[in-house]
Amino acid sequence: MNSFGRIFRIQIYGESHGPAVGLILDGVPAGLSLQLEDFAGDLERRKPGKQGTTTRVESDLPELVSGIYLGRTTGAPLHIQFKNQNIRSEDYSAFLDQDRPGHADFTARIKYGGQHDPRGGGHFSGRLTLALVAAGVVAKKILPELQFAAVLTEAGGLQDIPRALELAEADGDSIGGVVECRVEGIPAGLGEPFFDSLESVISHLAFSIPAIKGIEFGSGFQSVRMKGSEHNDAIMDSSGQTMTNHAGGINGGISNGNPLLFRLAVKPPSSTPQTQTTYSKQSGQMEPLKITGRHDLCLALRVPVVAEAIAAIAIADLALIRRTQNI
Amino acid sequence: MNSFGRIFRIQIYGESHGPAVGLILDGVPAGLSLQLEDFAGDLERRKPGKQGTTTRVESDLPELVSGIYLGRTTGAPLHIQFKNQNIRSEDYSAFLDQDRPGHADFTARIKYGGQHDPRGGGHFSGRLTLALVAAGVVAKKILPELQFAAVLTEAGGLQDIPRALELAEADGDSIGGVVECRVEGIPAGLGEPFFDSLESVISHLAFSIPAIKGIEFGSGFQSVRMKGSEHNDAIMDSSGQTMTNHAGGINGGISNGNPLLFRLAVKPPSSTPQTQTTYSKQSGQMEPLKITGRHDLCLALRVPVVAEAIAAIAIADLALIRRTQNI
Amino acid sequence: MNSFGRIFRIQIYGESHGPAVGLILDGVPAGLSLQLEDFAGDLERRKPGKQGTTTRVESDLPELVSGIYLGRTTGAPLHIQFKNQNIRSEDYSAFLDQDRPGHADFTARIKYGGQHDPRGGGHFSGRLTLALVAAGVVAKKILPELQFAAVLTEAGGLQDIPRALELAEADGDSIGGVVECRVEGIPAGLGEPFFDSLESVISHLAFSIPAIKGIEFGSGFQSVRMKGSEHNDAIMDSSGQTMTNHAGGINGGISNGNPLLFRLAVKPPSSTPQTQTTYSKQSGQMEPLKITGRHDLCLALRVPVVAEAIAAIAIADLALIRRTQNI
Amino acid sequence: MNSFGRIFRIQIYGESHGPAVGLILDGVPAGLSLQLEDFAGDLERRKPGKQGTTTRVESDLPELVSGIYLGRTTGAPLHIQFKNQNIRSEDYSAFLDQDRPGHADFTARIKYGGQHDPRGGGHFSGRLTLALVAAGVVAKKILPELQFAAVLTEAGGLQDIPRALELAEADGDSIGGVVECRVEGIPAGLGEPFFDSLESVISHLAFSIPAIKGIEFGSGFQSVRMKGSEHNDAIMDSSGQTMTNHAGGINGGISNGNPLLFRLAVKPPSSTPQTQTTYSKQSGQMEPLKITGRHDLCLALRVPVVAEAIAAIAIADLALIRRTQNI
Repeated sequence: MNSFGRIFRIQIYGESHGPAVGLILDGVPAGLSLQLEDFAGDLERRKPGKQGTTTRVESDLPELVSGIYLGRTTGAPLHIQFKNQNIRSEDYSAFLDQDRPGHADFTARIKYGGQHDPRGGGHFSGRLTLALVAAGVVAKKILPELQFAAVLTEAGGLQDIPRALELAEADGDSIGGVVECRVEGIPAGLGEPFFDSLESVISHLAFSIPAIKGIEFGSGFQSVRMKGSEHNDAIMDSSGQTMTNHAGGINGGISNGNPLLFRLAVKPPSSTPQTQTTYSKQSGQMEPLKITGRHDLCLALRVPVVAEAIAAIAIADLALIRRTQNI
Repeated sequence: MNSFGRIFRIQIYGESHGPAVGLILDGVPAGLSLQLEDFAGDLERRKPGKQGTTTRVESDLPELVSGIYLGRTTGAPLHIQFKNQNIRSEDYSAFLDQDRPGHADFTARIKYGGQHDPRGGGHFSGRLTLALVAAGVVAKKILPELQFAAVLTEAGGLQDIPRALELAEADGDSIGGVVECRVEGIPAGLGEPFFDSLESVISHLAFSIPAIKGIEFGSGFQSVRMKGSEHNDAIMDSSGQTMTNHAGGINGGISNGNPLLFRLAVKPPSSTPQTQTTYSKQSGQMEPLKITGRHDLCLALRVPVVAEAIAAIAIADLALIRRTQNI
Repeated sequence: MNSFGRIFRIQIYGESHGPAVGLILDGVPAGLSLQLEDFAGDLERRKPGKQGTTTRVESDLPELVSGIYLGRTTGAPLHIQFKNQNIRSEDYSAFLDQDRPGHADFTARIKYGGQHDPRGGGHFSGRLTLALVAAGVVAKKILPELQFAAVLTEAGGLQDIPRALELAEADGDSIGGVVECRVEGIPAGLGEPFFDSLESVISHLAFSIPAIKGIEFGSGFQSVRMKGSEHNDAIMDSSGQTMTNHAGGINGGISNGNPLLFRLAVKPPSSTPQTQTTYSKQSGQMEPLKITGRHDLCLALRVPVVAEAIAAIAIADLALIRRTQNI
Repeated sequence: MNSFGRIFRIQIYGESHGPAVGLILDGVPAGLSLQLEDFAGDLERRKPGKQGTTTRVESDLPELVSGIYLGRTTGAPLHIQFKNQNIRSEDYSAFLDQDRPGHADFTARIKYGGQHDPRGGGHFSGRLTLALVAAGVVAKKILPELQFAAVLTEAGGLQDIPRALELAEADGDSIGGVVECRVEGIPAGLGEPFFDSLESVISHLAFSIPAIKGIEFGSGFQSVRMKGSEHNDAIMDSSGQTMTNHAGGINGGISNGNPLLFRLAVKPPSSTPQTQTTYSKQSGQMEPLKITGRHDLCLALRVPVVAEAIAAIAIADLALIRRTQNI
C-alpha cells in the first residue's frame, strides 16, 4: 500500500528510472510556512556521492506542485515532486536473466507477474526514500519543539566509520551498520494502543525503508538479559522523568516524556561488487553474476536522516491525533 | 486504534478486570469451519499458571457471538468474547499514589486525563493478548498449508529455560527472553510495499504485544556485521529457494517462498517482586514500592503462541489482498 | 466492511437471531459521562411495537462491556452489547426455497456462497440499526451544543401519517416514507474534501441503513429546477448566516454554520403481507410466496432516530478531525 | 481526506490555478494495458467549451508519471498528472472581499484560517473532477465486461436539453440538471455491508463531485409512494433476474446482477451571470456582486462522464475486494 497515517498521511509514487518520484501529504495543518530551502538540509544529508555511497548524484530539487500558496500550506493535499534526471537504464538490463540475490527482483517478478519496472529496482529503489525525507521535513515543521538526532553508530562491525569504509573499499564488499535515532522534547501521551503503539507506528514505517532488518526501542535486545528491577525506569518527579531510559521513552505504547530512542539494523547492500553465484533462468542452473553500476557500499551512511524522517512522520500523525482525545 | 488490517481486520476491546475482553474479525471468508475446540490448543499455550507465570488462571472459554452459523463462518463480522471470571481488583488500588515503573500507569493517566481504568492494567493488560491468540486461530485456519512454530530460545540470558526460571525464583526478580518464530509453507508474493512490507505489518502487530521491545527478521542485528557477499542469499532454482536464509524469507518487503523468520525481544515483566523506589504523588518524592498480586516472573514463556498469532494475522490479511493483484 | 470513521470509529456485529448485536466505538474522548439511562430515549424512539411497526418487542437494554469506568468513558474501546431475547427462528425457514423479493436473501446467498445466517435476515436485519442508534447517543454527547431533530414528513404519499397507516392496514400492504433530519448549532468548518465532504460521510452512513434508497441535502432534487440566482444562499453577515438555506448548510462539502438539512427516501418494507410471485429453486419457476411473521408495515416510522444517529456519528468524527487542522 | 477506496485506491491533489492536478491510483492490478489514447474519449466528454459550459479550454493531456512500464500497469502506484495551462488568476481577486454565495469561499476560509488557495476555487474547483474521470478510465479497463451509460435526462426543468440551454442563455442565469447513470453487466455479489453497501460507496464518491446535492438508486424518491407489493422486484430465474428494477440493481447493499441505476441531482452553478447581493467584509453589509470570468451555465452537461467514473471506481474496488471472500 502506498499510503500511511491516519491524519497526517503520506502517499508515495515513483520509480528509480521513471520520470519522477514524489509524495502527497494529506492532513497537513494549514498555515505552515514552507519554503524550498526548508528541504535542502535533510535532502543533502540523504544524498549519495560521499565515500561509501553510490556516485549517482541527483540534484534532488523538490517541486511543490499543490497544497501551497504564498509560502504557506493551504490544508489541501501537498504534492512534492522530484524529477529524475540522472538515469542510466542500461546498467540493469543484464539482470533480467538472473534475479539479483538480496534484491526484490525475484519477489517483484512473482508478485506482479513479471510486469514490474525492473530498471534500477523500479518502485523498490532506495530512491523512494527521498519521499520519506521530504515528508520528514514537513513533519518536523509541525513539531518545532522536538529535536531529532540520528547517527550511524557502527558500520561493518566497527564504531570507527571511516576505518570501516576503508576496509570495505579494500575488500570490495558492501557493509551494514546500526543507526541510532534519538528524539528529545516529545511530550508524554503520544501513541494509540492497542494497535497503534508508538513502537508499532515507527516500526511500520522503519521497515518500509529498504535494507532495514531489525528495530529495537530503548535497551531493546539487551533488555532480555536484564532483571525487571534493573530494567524498570524509576520515575523521579511528577513530569514523569525517569532515572534511566531502558524503555526508550515509551511505556504501554505511549510516549512518557523522556527521550525516544530506537536503533535500526541496516543490512549490507545487496549490490556488492563481489561476484556472486545465483540461479540463471536461461541455463537453468546457478551461474556467476557480477553487478556493475553505481551502488552504495555502505547504504547505512545515508539512513540517519531517513530514520529521523520516519520518526517525525509517526510522531506528527500521533501528535495530531492526540488533539482529538479530550472532551 | 483498536483495529488493524485491510481485508482480514481485527478489532479488539476489553479490560483486565471488566466484564470481558474480546475481538471482532471482519473480512473472514465465508464457509470456514470453526469450532470452539479449534481454540483450545493455542489458548492453552497462552495460559498462565505454569512455572514462571502468574497464578491467575482463567478458564478462557471463547464464545462465538456472531458471524458463525451451523459451525461455519458466514462472512459477517465474527465476534469472539472471553468473559473475565477470576478478578481481584483490590490488588491494584495501592498503586494509585505511585505510578508503577515500566507500566502504562503514568502514560495512560496523562493521555486519558486520569479517566483510564487502572484495575490490573485495564486495557493495557497482557490479558488483551487473548484476542490476538483467538484471531491467530482463525487466521491459521485461513492458511491451512502453513506451519507456524515459535519457541522461547532464551530466558534471563540462558538457553536453558528451566534453569533460568529457577534462578529468577531464587532471585525474586522477573526476567526477559527471546522468542523466535518460524513460518514454513508461506508462498512467495505476500507483502504490499511501499508501506505495507511483510516486515512492516508483522512488526506493527508485534509491538502491540505488551513487553516487546525489539524485532528482527532473518539475521537481523547480526546482519549489520556481515559483508554483502555473505549476507546475500543465493537463489538456487526457479522456485526461489535460497542456499541461506539471512533475509528471513523476505526481499523488498515481499515473501520469497523461503521460511519466514523473526525474533522478538521480550523485556522482563515490570511487576518484579523486588521493592522499587519511585515517585509518590502524595509525598512529592521517591518512595519504596512493593508490587504484590499475581504476576508473571517470565512473561516471555507465554509469548510464543502470541508471536505465531500475529504472524498468522499479518499473513492472512496479505494473502487475501494478494488475490486482488492479477488482472 | 463492519467499521466506519477515522477518529470516532464505529464497528458493528451481530445477527437478528444470534446471541447479540452490538458495537465497538473507538476514538471516544476520555472523560465523557455515560450512563445506561442516556440510551433510553433514543432506543425507545427506535422500538417497534407501535402502530405500523413489527410486534417483535425487545427490551433492548444496552450493556457497557468495556471502555467505561466509574460512569465515564476511559478512552479505550467502548463496547455496547444488546442481547437478543425475543427470537422466533421458525418464521424464516420456509423462505430457503424462495429468496424473498426486495430482501438480501439472493444477494447474500450469492456473495457468501450460501453460508450466511438466513434467520430473520441475519446480519442484514434492521435490528442492526440498534448499533447505529447507540453510537448516535454517544456521538450526541460529544456534541452537546447541537440539536438533532428528524421527523417522518410523509408516509404512503400522505403527510397525515396516522391516515397513511390506517390505509396501509386496510390495504394489507407495506408503505414507504420520507424522513427529514435537521441539525442546528453545527459550527462552520466540518467536512474533509475532496472525498470526505460532509454530504459524502453522511450519505455513506445513510445507505448502510436498510431500506434507504435516496438522500438529498437542502433543496436536493428540487434544486435542479432552480436558477443559480434563485438557489444561491446570500450571505448576510460575517458569521456566514444565509438568507435562504437551499444548500442545506453545506458549501464545498463543508458545513457553513447554517442548519444542516437532509432527507432520506425510505422504501416500503419488502416483507409486505401481500402474496407475491417469485422464483422457487425447487420448482424452477415462479411460485406464490406469502410472508408471515412479525414485520414493519411502515419501517419509515422508526427511521427518524436512526437518521439523527448517523448525522451525529458523521458530525462527531468530523468535529474531532477538525481539531487537527490548525497549526 | 484526499483518498478513497480499500484496494483500488484513488488519491488526488491539485488546484485550479496551480501547476497541475492529478491522482495516484494504488492497488491497480499489474499487467493492465494502458495507453494515453485510452483517456481521450472520456476526457473529451468532460471538457468544457460546449454550449452551456465554460469557455476555459484545457488540452487536458494526461501524463503517466509512474506505475506504467512498456504500456502496462506494473502494480506500483499509478500517477497521472494534468498540467494546468490556461490560467487566468486575475478573474478571482475581486471576490476576496465578498465570499461568493454557493461557493466554498466562506467555508474554506473558516476551515483553513484563510490560508486556502482562492484562485479559481483552488482545491474546490470542478477541475478536480479530471482526476475522477481519469481514475474512471482505469477502473473501466479493470471491468471490461461492464457497460457504463450516463446521460443528462433533464436540465433547467426540461427534458429538451438544447431548449433548456437556450433559455438559460436568454435568461442569463445558470441551470441545474439530473444525470442518470446505468451500468449493465455488473455481477451479483458486489458491496460490503454493513457500512460499505454499494449505495454507500457510490454515494460517498458522488458527493465529492462539486454541485451534487442528491442521489437516488432505482426508484429512489419515487419508491416512497409505492406499496411494498409494487416496489418489490419479483425474481424470475436462478440468475436473479427480476421483472422490474425498482431496487436499481441492489438488495441489502449488494448488487443483484440486474442493471445498476442511480440518478444525481446537479444544482445550478453558483457562478451565475446574474448580479447577486451578499455580505461584504469591507462595508460590513450586503452589497451587489457580479461574477465575471469563464463559467459553466449548465455544469450538469459535463457530469455524465463523471458519474460513470465514480460508478466505475466504486465497482472496481468492490470487485477486487470480492475476490477475497471465498475460502
